[in-house]
Amino acid sequence: MTDSTYQALAESVRRLVDATIRTEADAGTVATVTAKVDAATAQLRAALMPGSFGQRCINDGQPIASGNVVIGVRNPIAPPLEVTRESDGSVWTEFILGAPYEGPIGHVHGGVCALILDHVLGATAHRPGRPAATGTLTLRYARGTPLNWPLRAEARVDRIDGRKVFAVGQIGDVAGATVLAEGVFILPRP
Amino acid sequence: MTDSTYQALAESVRRLVDATIRTEADAGTVATVTAKVDAATAQLRAALMPGSFGQRCINDGQPIASGNVVIGVRNPIAPPLEVTRESDGSVWTEFILGAPYEGPIGHVHGGVCALILDHVLGATAHRPGRPAATGTLTLRYARGTPLNWPLRAEARVDRIDGRKVFAVGQIGDVAGATVLAEGVFILPRP
Repeated sequence: MTDSTYQALAESVRRLVDATIRTEADAGTVATVTAKVDAATAQLRAALMPGSFGQRCINDGQPIASGNVVIGVRNPIAPPLEVTRESDGSVWTEFILGAPYEGPIGHVHGGVCALILDHVLGATAHRPGRPAATGTLTLRYARGTPLNWPLRAEARVDRIDGRKVFAVGQIGDVAGATVLAEGVFILPRP
Repeated sequence: MTDSTYQALAESVRRLVDATIRTEADAGTVATVTAKVDAATAQLRAALMPGSFGQRCINDGQPIASGNVVIGVRNPIAPPLEVTRESDGSVWTEFILGAPYEGPIGHVHGGVCALILDHVLGATAHRPGRPAATGTLTLRYARGTPLNWPLRAEARVDRIDGRKVFAVGQIGDVAGATVLAEGVFILPRP
């Protein structure tokens, strides 16, 4: 069983999540669809890992991050972001967020920007097998972040002091930053 | 058409999201389920509002917040939180977050805690029809926030200065705070 089969399912469920929020279908149609969804869930639950994806103990090549709420290819809540690390240690990702991420009308929820910035700033400190923990995160909101619009998030290390990595970054669009962030991430003890 | 019909669909899709992440079903079963999900999505998309839920112009009694990523009863990504406002202006909510919200193994993603705290601190400043905008948000992570465990988030107004509402709050469990937050929220001009 490869990750890509599960990944295709997650992509389909992402489209269902969007349609669930945006449908104007009549009550009969919605009830029919609800029954179909319940039947699909029952089929998947016939073989279910306990707890969460990160807690599974089977080593079949599926990356542990596949269940992650930001980057997990198996997690329908995740956009999912693909974060690129440059040779200078900076990281970036480009994406569009639709209706499921709404807060203010027509805009991305400010807390979703915080979720993404926590992850992207943290990615400057993470090393394979050595995840860094968020110590503090400070966000400054400059303006609204539009839904259904090309966005970019980026971050870089400002300085390192012992096990503390000080990172800075932002999320925004072609017109500039919408939210600015500073964070301190704690590296695990050697 | 009442909100509750759509709400029941969203609840079913939430269970599907969890099963999508946690299933160990074989490739044939997953492919069958994927096709069913695609068919369900097509039925819902036959009548679809443009843009996002907040942007719809139909006044049929469905609350505008039903699409919200944190509290929206129609949004399968939302837990959804029910935020209670006390007579002294403080707000609180109790909830459990499962596998879809994972970051570190067995723990809620730090950014999901930020998402919830942005919303809950902001709720101290929001008034019906007069949403407040996040100005700044500062988060201090004390320890990991466990998945599949009773959690509580709460906030109160520390002080008000003109259009600026200074709020403080935290998320945590019975053992105390896991993430502490301070935020400044800007009220709309009168």
